[in-house]
Amino acid sequence: MAAITKISPLAPKAFPDLPVIAGVSFATIEAGVRYSGRTDVMLAVLQPGTAIAGVFTRSATRAAPVLDCQAKLGSDPASGAVILVNSGNANAFTGQRGQMSVNELVGAVTNQLRVPEERVFTSSTGVIGEPLPHDRIIGKLDALITAQDAGGIAAAAQAIMTTDTFPKGASASVEIGGQPVQIAGIAKGSGMIAPDMATMLVYIFTDAAIAQNDLQAMVSRLNDSTFNCITVDSDTSTSDTLLACATGASGVDVSGQAAFEEALHKVMLDLAHQVVRDGEGATKFVEIAVTGATTDGDAKTHAMAIANSPLVKTAIAGEDPNWGRVVMAVGKSGATADRDRLSIWFGDVHVADQGWVHPDYVEAEAAAHMKKDAIRIRVDLGLAEGAATVWTCDLTHGYIEINADYRS
Amino acid sequence: MAAITKISPLAPKAFPDLPVIAGVSFATIEAGVRYSGRTDVMLAVLQPGTAIAGVFTRSATRAAPVLDCQAKLGSDPASGAVILVNSGNANAFTGQRGQMSVNELVGAVTNQLRVPEERVFTSSTGVIGEPLPHDRIIGKLDALITAQDAGGIAAAAQAIMTTDTFPKGASASVEIGGQPVQIAGIAKGSGMIAPDMATMLVYIFTDAAIAQNDLQAMVSRLNDSTFNCITVDSDTSTSDTLLACATGASGVDVSGQAAFEEALHKVMLDLAHQVVRDGEGATKFVEIAVTGATTDGDAKTHAMAIANSPLVKTAIAGEDPNWGRVVMAVGKSGATADRDRLSIWFGDVHVADQGWVHPDYVEAEAAAHMKKDAIRIRVDLGLAEGAATVWTCDLTHGYIEINADYRS
Repeated sequence: MAAITKISPLAPKAFPDLPVIAGVSFATIEAGVRYSGRTDVMLAVLQPGTAIAGVFTRSATRAAPVLDCQAKLGSDPASGAVILVNSGNANAFTGQRGQMSVNELVGAVTNQLRVPEERVFTSSTGVIGEPLPHDRIIGKLDALITAQDAGGIAAAAQAIMTTDTFPKGASASVEIGGQPVQIAGIAKGSGMIAPDMATMLVYIFTDAAIAQNDLQAMVSRLNDSTFNCITVDSDTSTSDTLLACATGASGVDVSGQAAFEEALHKVMLDLAHQVVRDGEGATKFVEIAVTGATTDGDAKTHAMAIANSPLVKTAIAGEDPNWGRVVMAVGKSGATADRDRLSIWFGDVHVADQGWVHPDYVEAEAAAHMKKDAIRIRVDLGLAEGAATVWTCDLTHGYIEINADYRS
Repeated sequence: MAAITKISPLAPKAFPDLPVIAGVSFATIEAGVRYSGRTDVMLAVLQPGTAIAGVFTRSATRAAPVLDCQAKLGSDPASGAVILVNSGNANAFTGQRGQMSVNELVGAVTNQLRVPEERVFTSSTGVIGEPLPHDRIIGKLDALITAQDAGGIAAAAQAIMTTDTFPKGASASVEIGGQPVQIAGIAKGSGMIAPDMATMLVYIFTDAAIAQNDLQAMVSRLNDSTFNCITVDSDTSTSDTLLACATGASGVDVSGQAAFEEALHKVMLDLAHQVVRDGEGATKFVEIAVTGATTDGDAKTHAMAIANSPLVKTAIAGEDPNWGRVVMAVGKSGATADRDRLSIWFGDVHVADQGWVHPDYVEAEAAAHMKKDAIRIRVDLGLAEGAATVWTCDLTHGYIEINADYRS
């Protein structure tokens, strides 16, 4: 495996202090799935009654662990639950053998922890097309179970990394009726070295009490404006998985509490942004806001067309306020636009107005904004009230180096 | 403007000998629209009775000349027709002034050549967002008209280039009932240096006799399997234009003649491939064939997802037979697929079978294919009979250099 050489210039200064979430404990271990000299398996054990919600890749070729997790959503939370994740091997495109490996892992956990099979969730990330050496993981289960630690979430964030250049964590706390509720989450993604796949894995834990159906609805809703609004290179992993677990240990019922949803949104958005900040070769963190569209859906289609355009992304890498490429991307997106009503801003600089360069536009001002490491592009379509914001990074020589120059 | 530095390694050895097409004459001139020291305007004058068909970018932000050409399709071919093209300025995103410039050009041609306005077609390619200096072109009209030459098509291919690294031409001749019919075409695209836009312009001429409606139907049909099956970087110009002109000078009626349609297909496909071969930074010409899909449309969706995937394109640049990225692209395309029925070939090497690596796969054999400069990837979905083939190029440091490292 290629060594992780340097940390993304867009990385946060340090891993955050994450709160302990009552009702869940973590363990990590070196199982030698593929890597050596580092942890590569994480275990999270959740107390009985924990509600679990999930969202997953929509890929038609999704990996066996993803299909298995999806099938288990909605199972009875009365028993405890377990999440078991390995890095180094994605158990993807492994034919029928993929589900067999999942079954072996789940069966072993069920035997040793007496948690029903339908409450054992597994994820795998790393090389694809190779059979998962599940025996190596099962051989470490005893040691993992012994090692459980309520404060082990930071170590868990490390164990699930593949080619990430930094571990990703975020937290929030919120008071509901004067009672504190804690949320903590970890994520991995989206560095990639051939032949690995850029899987995004996200695990969020809270001591809030909430019915599983309500949690699922909230997570699905929030996912649309967080993880589904980021893109590094328009390519979608076969293994993307997000699981949110509410242990209920705080005794605080958060159903219908906007403050809780807001706090959960904050954690999800923070983790989503960290994934973008670790985008392959990224040197710029880019926010693209589209307003004035016919619908919110149209706004998102335009925003994603801009965010995924190689020409827009290379212009940003070159610190070039190239609004023509933004117009091009809006034009090709397939959503409604009127060329002569478009307005574009780079940062606070009004670049284009009503389909032409703004009369007061001074390129030096826009160029100054492009030199920052956080870039904001806003497009107003001048049609109606539809709006969306998405996040991406630039497309640089670093991306080509990571994905074309290496052979594993 | 940045100089055109070197010719694409995928360029044909020489510009082809194109036949003279009876009924059309060409002229080119240096008008100094933006470039100096090279021709930048081409004029094609077509005899009365010439049928003209066109296909255009579907961009919602298309440029004024495109909208003008589209409005003129179907106008009466009894009079002559004129095509006037400039490079250096795209007259795109120029607000209301865009149509004004088109009107000025068309009016001047109509006055001097006595061709009705609705039979004067203009295209512009080059920098966007700047007013077209149409006066410079109009000032050269007299000289252009004087310079008309039936053999001037090769010079025309030169005049319409922007950042192309080679001029593009193709021809075919076919016998219908023992009578020869000639077809010749030229194209430009798709090099790009900021802030230019990668416009694709294609002009095809034939001395065949065919009703304008029949020609339009044929060109639209053939466009779906030629120019609409190529992609360099998934970004769509606001100015893409193809015009096909049948002068009728041969006196040979080609309506309903499969041999003519086949010959026209050959010319269109050849020009489309040349555009890919001049893709920015391209070092590999890539054919992607998808078979066994539920429908032809699904097959094309899968093929385009593979062709546009930055991860597939960088793997090809790295000469890496990375079939996992092909699976990923199939999975994200949105079209129907069954992971466990997928088969993949790189060249003639059967890489993956029934959703897993083929038992006889030897990576060295696939790696040998990847070293060629023409790469073939085939994916069989194992579902039904839907099929499609598309063409693209790899994604290299050259692409980043052209689009990120330069500022104009």
